[in-house]
Order: sequence, then structure tokens, then C-alpha cells
Amino acid sequence: MIDSTRYPRLARIDGPSDLRQFDEAELPAIADELRAYLIESVGKSGGHFGAGLGVIELTTVLHYLYDTPHDRIVWDVGHQTYPHKILTGRRDRIHTVKQKDGIAPFPKREESEYDTFGVGHSSTSISAALGMAIANARSGDDRRVVAVIGDGAMTAGMVYEALNHAGGMEPEPDILVVLNDNRMSISEAVGGLTKILGRATGSRTLNALREGGKKLLGDKNNPTAKFVRRWEEHWKGMFVPSTLFEEMGFHYTGPIDGHDVKALTDTLKTLKGLKGPQLLHVITTKGKGYELAEGDQIGYHAVSPFDPSLGVVAKDGGAKKPTYTDVFGSWICDMAAADPLLLGITPAMREGSGLVRFSKEYPARYFDTAIAEQHAVTLAAGMACEGAKPVVAIYSTFLQRAYDQLIHDVAVQKLDVLFAIDRGGVVGPDGATHAGNLDLSFLRCVPNMVLMAPADENECRAMLTTGFRHEGPAAVRYPRGTGPGVAIETKLETMPIGKAERRRRGRRIALLAFGAIVPAAEQVGEALDLTVVNMRFVRPLDRALLLELAATHDGFVTLEDNVVAGGAGSGVAELLSAEGVTIPMLHLGLPDAFQHHASREDLLSEAGLDVDGIREAVLRRWPDLRSGSNTLQAAAG
Amino acid sequence: MIDSTRYPRLARIDGPSDLRQFDEAELPAIADELRAYLIESVGKSGGHFGAGLGVIELTTVLHYLYDTPHDRIVWDVGHQTYPHKILTGRRDRIHTVKQKDGIAPFPKREESEYDTFGVGHSSTSISAALGMAIANARSGDDRRVVAVIGDGAMTAGMVYEALNHAGGMEPEPDILVVLNDNRMSISEAVGGLTKILGRATGSRTLNALREGGKKLLGDKNNPTAKFVRRWEEHWKGMFVPSTLFEEMGFHYTGPIDGHDVKALTDTLKTLKGLKGPQLLHVITTKGKGYELAEGDQIGYHAVSPFDPSLGVVAKDGGAKKPTYTDVFGSWICDMAAADPLLLGITPAMREGSGLVRFSKEYPARYFDTAIAEQHAVTLAAGMACEGAKPVVAIYSTFLQRAYDQLIHDVAVQKLDVLFAIDRGGVVGPDGATHAGNLDLSFLRCVPNMVLMAPADENECRAMLTTGFRHEGPAAVRYPRGTGPGVAIETKLETMPIGKAERRRRGRRIALLAFGAIVPAAEQVGEALDLTVVNMRFVRPLDRALLLELAATHDGFVTLEDNVVAGGAGSGVAELLSAEGVTIPMLHLGLPDAFQHHASREDLLSEAGLDVDGIREAVLRRWPDLRSGSNTLQAAAG
Repeated sequence: MIDSTRYPRLARIDGPSDLRQFDEAELPAIADELRAYLIESVGKSGGHFGAGLGVIELTTVLHYLYDTPHDRIVWDVGHQTYPHKILTGRRDRIHTVKQKDGIAPFPKREESEYDTFGVGHSSTSISAALGMAIANARSGDDRRVVAVIGDGAMTAGMVYEALNHAGGMEPEPDILVVLNDNRMSISEAVGGLTKILGRATGSRTLNALREGGKKLLGDKNNPTAKFVRRWEEHWKGMFVPSTLFEEMGFHYTGPIDGHDVKALTDTLKTLKGLKGPQLLHVITTKGKGYELAEGDQIGYHAVSPFDPSLGVVAKDGGAKKPTYTDVFGSWICDMAAADPLLLGITPAMREGSGLVRFSKEYPARYFDTAIAEQHAVTLAAGMACEGAKPVVAIYSTFLQRAYDQLIHDVAVQKLDVLFAIDRGGVVGPDGATHAGNLDLSFLRCVPNMVLMAPADENECRAMLTTGFRHEGPAAVRYPRGTGPGVAIETKLETMPIGKAERRRRGRRIALLAFGAIVPAAEQVGEALDLTVVNMRFVRPLDRALLLELAATHDGFVTLEDNVVAGGAGSGVAELLSAEGVTIPMLHLGLPDAFQHHASREDLLSEAGLDVDGIREAVLRRWPDLRSGSNTLQAAAG
Repeated sequence: MIDSTRYPRLARIDGPSDLRQFDEAELPAIADELRAYLIESVGKSGGHFGAGLGVIELTTVLHYLYDTPHDRIVWDVGHQTYPHKILTGRRDRIHTVKQKDGIAPFPKREESEYDTFGVGHSSTSISAALGMAIANARSGDDRRVVAVIGDGAMTAGMVYEALNHAGGMEPEPDILVVLNDNRMSISEAVGGLTKILGRATGSRTLNALREGGKKLLGDKNNPTAKFVRRWEEHWKGMFVPSTLFEEMGFHYTGPIDGHDVKALTDTLKTLKGLKGPQLLHVITTKGKGYELAEGDQIGYHAVSPFDPSLGVVAKDGGAKKPTYTDVFGSWICDMAAADPLLLGITPAMREGSGLVRFSKEYPARYFDTAIAEQHAVTLAAGMACEGAKPVVAIYSTFLQRAYDQLIHDVAVQKLDVLFAIDRGGVVGPDGATHAGNLDLSFLRCVPNMVLMAPADENECRAMLTTGFRHEGPAAVRYPRGTGPGVAIETKLETMPIGKAERRRRGRRIALLAFGAIVPAAEQVGEALDLTVVNMRFVRPLDRALLLELAATHDGFVTLEDNVVAGGAGSGVAELLSAEGVTIPMLHLGLPDAFQHHASREDLLSEAGLDVDGIREAVLRRWPDLRSGSNTLQAAAG
């Protein structure tokens, strides 16, 4: 429960209607309490931190002035919604964020009527808000619709698609876009847009120019002034970054200080009464109000639990196992040293993808496209046309954004691009929108692709080398976090394409495991004396081995941390059917459902993909294995 | 062979090096010949027409001035490359365009070294060209890279992602983007960008303003003039649509008349010598030089063979079978009349998707987002949040562009959006980049989706109604062209979700057919006396029927016009494995390869999905069926 001594106002706010009971003059104090409470809560829970601190005032004022949930606020991206969640009935549960059965780290429609649209991936808010505004206008509803979007999210093309559509519509849609400009996306600010937005940071030059402009325009006898006034909107483009938005058909207001409650309140009161597509540009500081976070915006983007008085302290790195991300980060530096043709590309995920060292050691060969997955992949295709060897480092879930480009620009043309796909399979605390549950299915159907999933860290490195040296499109898909912790060789060796590794010869049943699930499969194989194969390649499959195993076994169990529908196991079944071979099969994988947020271990266990779950599933299908195994009881205990 | 009397210059041009032997003064005459030859050729072959006529002069000048193929020209979209193909060694084969074994309708790397990048989907050229420029700069190559992009393609977000990246890069990439502005994408020009570009059409107002500007700036004693000059680049934004591009970091030149060979030559000579990201804005007329095409730009976007002196003549519509597109077009009007909540969305495919009548009868409920698939889908999601019932009409191949939005914004949130997916399966003459071979695979793995494939026109209508009335995400996927020609009921009836239709009871083997392949399966079933099922639902499958059939048959054959990998047939195998049922299976579908361009019939036949192919595949697998059937020989003959 919230401490009403330390948070006298916030303790009384169980929802926005309580907030609206306060006098406007108290809003700054409420914002201060909200900030302190957020720091305290995230210190306990871990989670996304900096973005929320930047929108404390904005969140407070929006819920104060707008009649939520009747009015719609669409938050983009969801990282910034912790303050929103605190003000909309989830104050006492905010410390459970990202935990199993706790509240979601992003807006979630099922969780609250105040969460109007689920936004895990960025840059969707304007499209969604426009859809809402259109639907409301048709039904004669007077709801107002506000999209709040960070400057980092502005680099993704679909924002531009939405602005272009909204700005050109007749009749004009009533929609307010709040551009929350903290000059900092997750990684560093990148690209031309940064230059435009950068121009807005209220410098003395800016103010001087503004005064100059007023003087010029104020002199009514000056014939040029008349001329200029006709183009007033364009004049604004000289001082503020309005041009882009005004050219797209939006009415631009700003920039204003997003931490100034009075300025926000006054401006939003006016904007609330205006029709047509409006854009309000607010300048905020990510991590605002927590000094440590302001000073290290990347480090505090998302954090593990920490003590607010100490900040995030680096853990003892003594015996720390490297994550798969670390393995990739080392590999790309080593391979770059070995092959000058290697170029590395990330869509705004330098830290998350393990590219920090590469970006420092090979700055001229490092390309951060900002949040722009489509462009990132076609950029790689263009590089490959000219003989360079691009590596696209991307999260599984974000690769969905570049699916057409992967098919149309890379695979159709058989171009030599390597995809290093991080966060494949079960991801965990970030929930359904960040899960990598589908990638084996949506990649396996694409002709010309070589698709690999490593069983351990060393294999991940070898697969990256294999995919890189293979001439044509290839992908290595690895999970979030650490693996079994095997020793990693320093050399850069390849493995034969399409060859699986038999890990164990057993009786009757063969366990065919893909990727991260191999160690669990191996344990079950030991316990039940079954054959175990580390499949390594999702495509092409090891045809010879599969036919040999089918001839010598009573059944196959396929195992993968991907949905069963169209997954790697289905590929095994397809191959056997094509060969006219029939054998009982059991496909173990993730369920046909979007998974909620919980730890990776919990989710794997729920899906029956831990050692116990796998063993039980096998025994349910082949009960007679139970009696035949002497080692079983021991292993199960 | 080309007639050297009518085309004295063009007959001597077997490639760009021949073109470059001519004196610059002859370029207009060469362009005239090229235009006449294109009209004659497309009259014979059919194909994309208007776009090519618009870039006759630009193509001629680019190949004259740039050292192709050493220098790279990336055409976006490929429709406009017929003149390019004629000038680059394919003059005498241009009439084979889109035909089997003929030349491809888009640039194709395998076809010619002058085709630097395959572009079937729009808006990829700047990304690809930037990738090339980066790779060339690294290898110390002095190649120049030019992207030619139409204004219609400028609405897709990935263009903006590419401009943003290119304009913000250090060091600046050397790249020229030619914006070919014909103020007409495939459908009508849509969106805010049109307003920006529209401002450029050299009107008297424009020229008057330009003069006014010069006067103002010319007066050096005017203190405001100094002030203004500092912002010269922004001034330009007042007169020409440079602002957007300059703000993104490009140096803007234009607009110039794209049919004026002299202006093009002079300007491109200058630009060739400049460094950094350059944008040249040329204004052209789609269909230029062929009066009928200029007057009906949409009708002449792509044509069937016609007589150039008569133009495209409407065919006798007497007994014409409706295409699936027509079926959808009628359905959406009928359903809109029945349910005021229906809203229709298309990403720039009004004509192709059959939405012309709907757009006229229900203009307020019709939304053309321009080429912006990502936005189109999330827009629908937003509408669905507010209780509207959006229908997204989209080609299968273009849905790949909105895959993340379908998953993340629609399916995760179980929003009530209907996808009407045209051009599913084998598409044909447009080749690999327009094929719908993968959609059942990439949609089947998405939780919460209902996925249907109709066996005939009437079923298509019923499925559209079913998907529309179903609360949650649903998709109906139908093929290009006509179906079997069954009578179409006028009422709006649903079918039970997840129920298949047994068409025939036969012996031993069950043919389980999905969608367009059902009629062929039925013929084979008749011939061999096999059970035939029209599966109707790819997900959810008809579990009860499948278990019943498995218990009473010796084997299953699944049939679909989708790749086998992860397709509908794999879904049947997965279901049976999950139920512990083992039965010999044969999966018939499209091969694991991108198909070349040819007619739909040819491609289906090559894939063994016509009646003969299916029958032979079944008999290869179960040879004893041959002897058992008395009716077989008769049916095969």
C-alpha cells in the first residue's frame, strides 16, 4: 500500500476522476509525488524507467484535462506508460510490472479501459488514433483522441504513412498528436530527423530569430511584410521544426517545455478546443528528476531492481556467463577483423543487440538506421548487390516489420545477407508483443533461406560464421539471455550446412530438438534412454539422418521454442511425407496463443518445454517407455 | 526484329554504349523512336504501359550520361522499366514481357546486368541505392548510384526511413534520387504528400512569387534581406516542394520538365559532378505521347494486348464470369448496405481490389491510405477499437508489408478486422515478387486468426460474410482471376466456423483440398473414386471430420496453392500428431522456390497442381489405386 504520509495527494488518486478533483494549482505537487513514487516502485520492480520519468507532467495534465477513459489517449511506445498506469488505478500494483500475474509493461487493452491500444512496438500510435478518430466521427461520438509519440519513434516509416494520410484527409480528422521530444531514442539519436528536431531546442539563437521575425512582420508598411505574411506558416519553418508537420497537413504548436505544468495545461486547454489534425511539440528530458538516470539515459532505459539511493550498480562479473547477445557481439568484432567486407546494421538496437563494441571499433562499418526495420533490411540488400557482406542484427519480433523486405529484396534475389536474430522463441517479461514465438514458422516458408538455431553459445558462434560465409540469405536465431555455458572457441569455424548432430543413441524414440531446447531434450533422453539429435538447421533439414532414424525408431518427438503451427517440427513431418515415410510423431513447441509476460523459465515450463514437461509428454504418448526405463525414477527425482 | 526504316536510330542501339555514340542533339529523336516502339510493343504484349511512357526522356538521358552498367540505376517501381529494357539489350524481346520464358515485367538481376535491383513492390529504391553507395564508397569504387522513384511510391514509409538515414549520415553518401513526379500513383493521388508535390506544378502564381522573392533578396540594403538570406534554403520551401527533402538532409534541384531532353541533360550533367545526397524533382506525364493513355491514366496503367490505333476496347461482357475481385467488390457494397459499421480500407489498390463501386457508393466509408500497408492495417485496428468493422482489402504479396501490424496490432488484441486477401496463391505473369505463395504459411502461425480459402465464388462471398460477422481477426484468401463459375447467391449468409464440406465419399484415400484447388481435387476424386473434402478453413481445422476420416481411410492427400512448408496441409499433419493419430500423408502444394512469371495455368501445371499432376502424384504414392479403378483410364483420357 502507498504511504500516505510521503504521498498525501497520490494516495487519494485511485483513478483520473480523483485527479480531476484537485485544484489546478496542485498539479505540480501531484507530479512531484508521482515522480518520487515511480522511482521508488521501479527501484523495487525493475523495468522501463527513463521514458516514464520524462512524461510525468504530461501524463498528469492529460488525465486532468481530458475525460479519460471516454477520451482516448494512445501511448507510443508503451515504455512511457508507468505514470499513466499509476494514475489509472494501478498505483498499488505498479511494482509487479513485468512479473508473472503482475501488470504488463506496456498498455494492454485487457488490463484496463484506460489502455486504449496495446503498443509494444513503436510508431503505431498515430495510425491507431486516426482509426479511432474516424470511427468516432462516424458514430457521432464526441470523444477526443490523443496520440503521444516519442521522437525516437518518429523514424519509423509508418508514422509518416499515418501523418500523410491524416494530413491529406477530407474531412479533416480531429486528432491531437503530442510529439514527446526527448532527443533520445533507445539508442543514440540518429538520422536526418534528429537534425530537424534538434533545431528546436530553445536556444538563444532561436529566441533572437523569433524576435527578429516579429519585428519584420510587425512593420505593416513594409511591402515585403505583406508578402511574407501570406506565407506565415512557412515562415514558422524557419524557426521551429514545424515545416515537416505542416507540410503533411498538421497544425503545429510548440515547442513547449514538457516539464512546465502551467505551460502544458494552458496549451492543451487551447488545443482541446481545436478541430482538425493538431501536433503539439513538447521538449522533455528522459529520466527527468532522477539525476543518475538523466546522466545515463541509455543505461536507465530499462533497469533491473535497484536501490534508488545507490542507482544501478554493475554486478560482479567474475563468473558471469555470456548471453547469446554477448556471443554475437564478440563474434561480429572478430569476423570484422577477419573480413573487411563485413558491415553491421541495427535498427536502433545497438545496446540490446550487443553492437556497442563493434560500433566503437568499426565506426565506419556500423550503421544504425534508427527505428526503421524495413529500410535496414533493404539497405543490406543493396550493400550485398555490390559485394559487401552485411549482417543485420535484429530482434525476432522486430523482424516482423521487415518481412516483405526479407522476402522480396533479399530472398527472391538470393542476396548474401546474414540475419542475426536475437530474442527468438520465449522472451518473457516484455509479454506477447516482444515474443519471438513465430519466427521459425514465418522464416521456414521463405525459399532460399538457410535457417539455424544454436543449442549453445559455441554453436551460435559457429553458425554465425557459417551463415556469414554461406553465399546467400541466412539467419541464425538465438534466444534471450544465457545458454548452457559451454566454452566458446576463439577461432571462426563453419559447420556443414544441413547436417544435424546426433548427441545420443537410444532406443525406440528419437528426440529431434531445435535450438535452445536441446539441453532439456538431452536430459530427457538420458532419463528415458532415447535417441537425441541436435538438429541445428531448421532449413535445410538433414534428410539422410532423418530417413535413417525413421527406419530405426518407433517414433519421433520434435522439440522447439516456437509455435508448433508451421514450425521446425512440421518441417520434419513434411520431409518424411514427401519421402513416403510414415512414423508416429509428437510435436512439442509453444502453444497456439500469444503468451503473457512472465519469466522465460515460467513460460517454458507452462508450455511443457522444461525437462519435466517434455518427459511427461513423451510418456503420455508412449506409456510403455515408463516401465522399460530403470533410470527414469532417479532422473525424475 | 525491329523495323529499321521506322526506327533508324533505335535499330542501331543494342545497348547503352551504342546510345552513347549518338550526338546529344539526336537524343530527342531517339526518345521519339523509343516512345513509338514502346507503344507498338506493348500493343502486342500487354503489360504496364503508362509509367514507361512517362520516363522515355529520363531513361534515354540517364543511360546517355551515366556509364551503365558500371554506374547503377535503381528503378522504383519496376513498371517504368520497359524503356530501360529496350535500351539495354532487350529491344527485340520486349514484346515477350510477362510471358512464360519472356522477359520479366520488373527489373530482374538474373536477366540483365543493367537491372541492378529487383523492384516489384514499390518504395525500396532509395534504401537499395543507399546500400550500394555505402558499399561502393568502402571499396573505393567510383560508381555513381541513381534511384528513380515515382511520386506514388513516396507515400510508403520506408522511403522516409531511407531519406532520414541517408540525409543524416556522416560522411554524406553520394547518391542521386530522381523523383519522377507524375502526380498519379496507380490509384488516385492521395494524402498530404500530394498537396506538397502539387504545389510544384509550375503555375503563374509560382513564377510570380519566385520573382517577388528575387526582388526582395536583391535589395542588399534591406536589413531584412540579410536576415532572410541566411535562411535561403528555407525560403526555397516557400516556392518549391524542396522543404521536406532539404529538411531530411538532401540537396534539392527542381522541379524540371521531365520531357524536356535538353533540360534533363543539362541538369543531370551538373548533378553528376556533385557530392552528397542529391534529389532531382522532374515533372512528367504518365502515358506521355499516347493520347489515349494520357487521358485515362488508370485504365492504361497496365493493359492487355491492344491495337495502338484503337486503344484498349472493353471486351464483350455478355457471358463473362466474375473474377474473385468482382465477387469481393459486390460483396462489400452489399454488406455496407446491410451494416453501417462497415468501413473499407485499401492501400492504393482501389481498382485492383475491386473497390471502385464501393468508393463511389460509400465515399465516406472508403479509405485509400496510398501505398502504406503498415498504416492501413493499424488504422483498421484503431477503428475496430471503437466498434467499427473495418475490412482491409489487400493483395497477398503486399500483406507481407504489414505482417507485424497484423500480428501486433490486430491479432494480439483480438480486434475485429477482416482481411480480404486478393491474389493469394499462384498469381502468374507478374512473377515472383507478386506471387501469393506464402500467405497460408505466414498467417497460419498467427494465434487468434480465422483463416479461410474459398473453393468457388459463392463460397468466397459466404466466407467474407462469415469473417465479417465473426468477432475477431479473420482473413479470406482468394486467387487472382476467375473461379469455377458457380451461381452466386445474393443473400449474406455465414458458414459455421471450422467446418469442412465433404464433397465426395470414396475409398481408401481422402483428398483434403484448400481453396482454389478444390475443383481439380474433385475431378481426381471422381476418376480414382477417392474421398474429397473442401476444407474451407485453414484455421481452425475441422477436427472431428479429420479424426473420422483418419479412422476410415488409408491415407490423406492435402492439396493447396501455397508452399508446402508450413502450409495448410502441415496443419492437418500437426492436428493428427497432436491427437496421436498416424496416417500416411502426401502434401501437394507449391514448390519451395520463388516462381518465375508465366500464366497461372502454366505455373499450376508445372507445380503438379492441375488434374493430371495431382492424379499422377497420388498414383505414384499409392500405385495399387491404378489397378483398382475402372474409371481411371477413361477419366485420364
